[in-house]
Amino acid sequence: MLILLTNDDGIRAPGLAAAYRELCKLGEVAVVAPETVQSGAGHGITLKNPLAVSEVTVDGLFSGIAVDGSPADCVKLAINQLLPRTPDLVVSGINSGVNVGINVIYSGTVAAAIEGAFLGIPSVALSLLMRSDVAPDYTVAADFSRQMIERMLKAGLGKGQVVSVNLPALGAGAKPAGVRICRQCTRPWVDKYDKRIDAAGRTCYVNTSVFTLKSADNDTDVAFLRDGHITITPLMFDLTDRKHLSTWQAHPWNLG
Amino acid sequence: MLILLTNDDGIRAPGLAAAYRELCKLGEVAVVAPETVQSGAGHGITLKNPLAVSEVTVDGLFSGIAVDGSPADCVKLAINQLLPRTPDLVVSGINSGVNVGINVIYSGTVAAAIEGAFLGIPSVALSLLMRSDVAPDYTVAADFSRQMIERMLKAGLGKGQVVSVNLPALGAGAKPAGVRICRQCTRPWVDKYDKRIDAAGRTCYVNTSVFTLKSADNDTDVAFLRDGHITITPLMFDLTDRKHLSTWQAHPWNLG
Repeated sequence: MLILLTNDDGIRAPGLAAAYRELCKLGEVAVVAPETVQSGAGHGITLKNPLAVSEVTVDGLFSGIAVDGSPADCVKLAINQLLPRTPDLVVSGINSGVNVGINVIYSGTVAAAIEGAFLGIPSVALSLLMRSDVAPDYTVAADFSRQMIERMLKAGLGKGQVVSVNLPALGAGAKPAGVRICRQCTRPWVDKYDKRIDAAGRTCYVNTSVFTLKSADNDTDVAFLRDGHITITPLMFDLTDRKHLSTWQAHPWNLG
Repeated sequence: MLILLTNDDGIRAPGLAAAYRELCKLGEVAVVAPETVQSGAGHGITLKNPLAVSEVTVDGLFSGIAVDGSPADCVKLAINQLLPRTPDLVVSGINSGVNVGINVIYSGTVAAAIEGAFLGIPSVALSLLMRSDVAPDYTVAADFSRQMIERMLKAGLGKGQVVSVNLPALGAGAKPAGVRICRQCTRPWVDKYDKRIDAAGRTCYVNTSVFTLKSADNDTDVAFLRDGHITITPLMFDLTDRKHLSTWQAHPWNLG
């Protein structure tokens, strides 16, 4: 099995190295990841501008290809140009920070996995909750991630399927409360902006919103993660709202 | 009715000015749009970095606020800070170029509308097909856009609803073949990259893919637009794949 490993925190991020170690137990791992941190990149892709690539060795652990582009660029370029053959699985992460709730749509980590799915490859995004009172243990998170991927492959992770896995913050020796297959919470964040005047005298606003797990519907990723579970959310990239599609198709829309 | 008008081609784009003129027939229009072109920005948002804002007057037609951020930043900031009250409708466009098929997820134009919907406001993305053999007529496109928005408001465009409208390229005096309420085509693009060596001697790849309307399933936005229709696709931002959700929930997932 050839696994393409990418992320949005950059090729030197600790979550990627930890994932690399565990994924090697499942197959051959090729790393193609952004040169720099791409958090909040969403599903951006680079058109027309050149994407510089360079081979880098990280911590004596692996050699990978760094791309000065977005997570989605990495997946596109890897599959189209850089890999010797089409990968059997795309894994994105482990991200330092969760991608639950409405964050899913802003997430470069998830965008990379969705890109893999577009291109017909089963894809998994991995994200770890950061908590100020728990030192992040990527080794533990990667171990659980690998276990979840094994289970998903067994449950059937087909062509074009994409899944977002979120891991709770676990201190040394701690265990997740369980595993929940659950939907994405769609409650909006409460945005917060600070107004400032910059050195050039321009008015600026800084988004200082902090995403919290407080407000959530009970059966969602946000609620289960808050309660210490690993959450697994199958995603899709067909954004068509079928309910409104049928309602509106019943209306007359012909031009006068 | 207060309408927030934004786009991803930048506040000085001709599609935005044309939309402004027509939307004034429906209510008060406030323009908050990116300072610069943001094509392919996807649903990126700016966290931590300051977003500079400035008031600009465009063609003596309107005064609006330019934000040096992404389309989604514009909508967030407008609703949270810049507008005197919550808008009744968010309109994004008219984009120079279509946002059909898989492009929907890369599109800054659509991201702005989805952001409006997150925040509870009915939102519409408008995009115009560019064809080398037809000079784009934004006035005609804006007229049809306004008509479509009027129809949608009549059909019921509720809180949190988001719709992507794509307009065919129309020469002077031409009329669309009709209006189709249809799903998003989910076929992948065929990526194309050119390999180059840059001035610094680094290996680079340039994404030179050209999106065409050729390959499409019959009942989709891509096919109907290709055949000269206005396409209307209701979208949603809950990415949960409910089919796989139920299948997987039936599996045992408890940790050993």
